[in-house]
Amino acid sequence: MADLKQNRRNFLKGTALAGGALLAGRATGAAAAEGDPAILDIQPWAQQLGEGVDARPYGYPSPHEKHVVRRSVEWLTADPVSSVNFTPLHELDGIITPNGLCFERHHAGIAEVEPSKFRLMINGLVDKPLVFTMEDLKRYPRVNKMFFLECAANSGMEWRGSQLNGCQYTHGMIHNVMYTGVPLKYLLEEAGLKTNAKWIMPEGADASAMTRSIPVFKALDDCIVAFMMNGEALRPEQGYPARLVVPGWEGNMWVKWLRRIEVGDEPWHHREETSKYTDLMENGKARRFTWEMDAKSVITNPSPQAPIPHGKGHTILSGVAWSGRGTITHVDVTIDGGKNWHAARIDGPSLDKSMHRFYYEFDWDGKPLLLQSRAVDSTGYIQPTKDALRAVRGENSIYHNNGIQTWYVNANGEAENVEVS
Amino acid sequence: MADLKQNRRNFLKGTALAGGALLAGRATGAAAAEGDPAILDIQPWAQQLGEGVDARPYGYPSPHEKHVVRRSVEWLTADPVSSVNFTPLHELDGIITPNGLCFERHHAGIAEVEPSKFRLMINGLVDKPLVFTMEDLKRYPRVNKMFFLECAANSGMEWRGSQLNGCQYTHGMIHNVMYTGVPLKYLLEEAGLKTNAKWIMPEGADASAMTRSIPVFKALDDCIVAFMMNGEALRPEQGYPARLVVPGWEGNMWVKWLRRIEVGDEPWHHREETSKYTDLMENGKARRFTWEMDAKSVITNPSPQAPIPHGKGHTILSGVAWSGRGTITHVDVTIDGGKNWHAARIDGPSLDKSMHRFYYEFDWDGKPLLLQSRAVDSTGYIQPTKDALRAVRGENSIYHNNGIQTWYVNANGEAENVEVS
Repeated sequence: MADLKQNRRNFLKGTALAGGALLAGRATGAAAAEGDPAILDIQPWAQQLGEGVDARPYGYPSPHEKHVVRRSVEWLTADPVSSVNFTPLHELDGIITPNGLCFERHHAGIAEVEPSKFRLMINGLVDKPLVFTMEDLKRYPRVNKMFFLECAANSGMEWRGSQLNGCQYTHGMIHNVMYTGVPLKYLLEEAGLKTNAKWIMPEGADASAMTRSIPVFKALDDCIVAFMMNGEALRPEQGYPARLVVPGWEGNMWVKWLRRIEVGDEPWHHREETSKYTDLMENGKARRFTWEMDAKSVITNPSPQAPIPHGKGHTILSGVAWSGRGTITHVDVTIDGGKNWHAARIDGPSLDKSMHRFYYEFDWDGKPLLLQSRAVDSTGYIQPTKDALRAVRGENSIYHNNGIQTWYVNANGEAENVEVS
Repeated sequence: MADLKQNRRNFLKGTALAGGALLAGRATGAAAAEGDPAILDIQPWAQQLGEGVDARPYGYPSPHEKHVVRRSVEWLTADPVSSVNFTPLHELDGIITPNGLCFERHHAGIAEVEPSKFRLMINGLVDKPLVFTMEDLKRYPRVNKMFFLECAANSGMEWRGSQLNGCQYTHGMIHNVMYTGVPLKYLLEEAGLKTNAKWIMPEGADASAMTRSIPVFKALDDCIVAFMMNGEALRPEQGYPARLVVPGWEGNMWVKWLRRIEVGDEPWHHREETSKYTDLMENGKARRFTWEMDAKSVITNPSPQAPIPHGKGHTILSGVAWSGRGTITHVDVTIDGGKNWHAARIDGPSLDKSMHRFYYEFDWDGKPLLLQSRAVDSTGYIQPTKDALRAVRGENSIYHNNGIQTWYVNANGEAENVEVS
C-alpha cells in the first residue's frame, strides 16, 4: 500500500507544477476575484434565507445531483420487475454505498412487506421448528458488519468482449453496506440442528419465492439475518424488513424478504442454482456452487461515464476493489496498458469482505491512456486478465467474471471500454 | 469490552428460558403456523408482482418507516431558518447516520449552492492567495474518514434538570458520517503559510456567513475540506458542495457551504465564539475555546420514545458513545441507578473520533429500571455525572454537557427522562 505523504510529495512536485502552472490557480486570490462574478458574497444563496429545519424531515440530495441515480438497461431483461438497477459507481467515493443508490435485482418486483405481518420460519431438520416475528428477532444479540454484495452476473457481458460503456453497467451490480442484524447461528441454535443437518434453504416472501441452498458451515460461520442497513431500516428493494447476509458469496444467495429457512441434509437443486447461477464451460459442463466472489477491482474515475474534466496535469485516478475471501492488500494500476504498474493508495477502513477505495495520483501528459487496475487479496490471490479467465472457462458463462477491466482515454479525456491483449 | 459469545451464553441461559418460555416461540413451527394468518404464502406481497427497477432511480425508505424522521422543537428557537433538526437516535442502529437523517443546524436556512459557482478563497497571511473551484479541489489527493459531529449545545437543556423526553431531543444533535475530501493541510501548504500564521477563519457562503477561529495546529493536523458524505455528494443541509470537517471538535466549527479561509495571527473573536459557544460559569466568567468534545454516551433503546415493546425476559439494551479525543474503550451500564455496573459489548468498527455502538443483553424481571451508561475513552477519561459537571461549571451554560443520562423505565416498559443523585 503506497504512502499518502510520499505519493503526494511526488505528485505536487510533478511536472505541471515545475512548469510553473498553479494547480489551484485559475485565479489567485482577492485581486483576481474582482473579475470573477462567482466569487464571494454576490451569490443569491448569500443574500437570502434558505429553507428551515421544518422543510426536510427526511433529507434528499441537491437538485444539482439529479444525474446521480441507479440505471437499468432496457434490452438486458424482458421486464423491469425481473431486472437489475445498477449502482452509479463513477459518481461515488469512499467505501459506503448510500441506501438510495444500492444496486437492486428483483425476480418479481419490490415486495412491500408489512413488518407487523413478517414471519420467519425455521423448519426441517431441527429439534424445534420455530417462527420469529420482527420483535422476536430484535431480542437476540446483534452485530454490525460492513460487507459488499456483488451479483454473480456483474461484468457478465464482458466474457464476450467489451460491450457496455460505463462502470455503472460493467461493474455496478455491487453495493457495500453496514448491516445490523442477528447472527443466523443464534436462530439455528435456538431451533436445534439435527446431526444430519448439512444445508439450509432460505426462501423469500416475494412473489418469486427465491430459494438457494447454502451449506450449514457457512450459515453457522458468518451469515446474518439483517434488519438495518447503513444505520436505518432495510430499504424495500433490499428486502425490508429482513434479509439474509451471506458475506463474500454471490448476491443471489442473500435472500430478501426472508420468510423461511428450511434445514436439510442435501442441496435442493432449485432453479436458481441449476439453470441459473451456474457457470457453463467450453465443454458444455457447468461449474456449480461457485459461491465465493473472487478478488476484483475497477477504475471508477476516469471511466466512460466520467471523463477527465480538465486537461493535462494533476489527475486523480480512483477505483474500488473487493474480495469474497478477506481484505484487499494491494491494488496496482497501469496507465499504459500494462507496460508499467504502480502501487495505488488504499484509503479508508480496510474491512473483511468489504469494498476498498484506492487512488493513484499522476501527472497526465495529455496523451491517450490505457487504464487498468489489478487487486490482490489477503489470501495472495491476484485478479486475472479476462483472457486468462477465458482460457480456463471459455466464453459461455455470464457469471463470475472478475477479469481486469481496461479503459481507453483519448486526448480529450473521454474514456471507452476496450480490451487489450 | 465484553465478549459477545460469553454474554450471549449467559443471556440465552437466563431465567426466562429456564422458566420454560421459548424466546422465539409465540408459535413453534408449521403446526402452530396453521392458526396464524400472517405466516407463509397468503400475504399480498407473495401473490402479486411489485414495482420494477424503473420505479426508483434514487430509493427511499419503506412507507412503514414514516415515523423515522428528524424532528425540531418549535419553542426552542425563534424561527425554523435558525434552528435545529434532531437525529432520531432511538430509531437507528450501528454507527452510520444515514444522510437523510443527519442532525442539521442552520443560522440562515439551507443554502442551495450551485456547484459550478462554488469558489473557495484562501487569503490573509499566505504567500499566494488562492481561489479553488470544485474541479480544482478534486485534483488534490483525498482521504476517507468517519467522524461524529456533535453540536456543543447537545444535551444543553439538561444543565438545569431533565426536560426533554427522548434521546432524539436530549442527544440528537449529533451524526456520524464517512467523509471524502481533501486534507486542509494540502490547500494551506499550496497557498504557503507565513511564519506568523497561527489561526484560520473559515467562512460560510450562506446568508449567515458563519465564521469561527480555528488554530493552525488543528487545521494542519486532521481538518478536511469534504465534498462527499457516506459515499455520495454532501447534502445541501450539510454544506453542499463543500464543508469543513474538524474532527472531534464542536459542530459549529465545521463551517458549511465553505467559501473562504482567512489566515491570521490571532483569533477573530466573532459572534459565534464570544456571545455564543462559550460556557458561562457560576462566577459570571465564561470558558472560551472549549472546542474538544468530551467522552459521552446515551442509551438509545429503551428510551422515552422507544419503550420496551415486550414484557419481561430477554431484553436488548443499546446505545452510542463517542469522544473527541480518540476511541471509546469501555462502556459500562447500570439498570439499577448505579448500584451495579456491567460491561457493555461494543460492536462494529472502533474508529478514532467516531461513534461507537454498544449493547447490553439482560433478562428483565419486569420491575422498574433506572438505566445509565458511562463511557471511557482511549485517554482514560471517564464520562462524569451531571452533578459532578454542575459542581465545577454551575448551571448557566447551555454547552458541553456530557453528563451521564438516566432513563426511568416503568413496569410497562415505558421510559422517562429523570435524574438520580
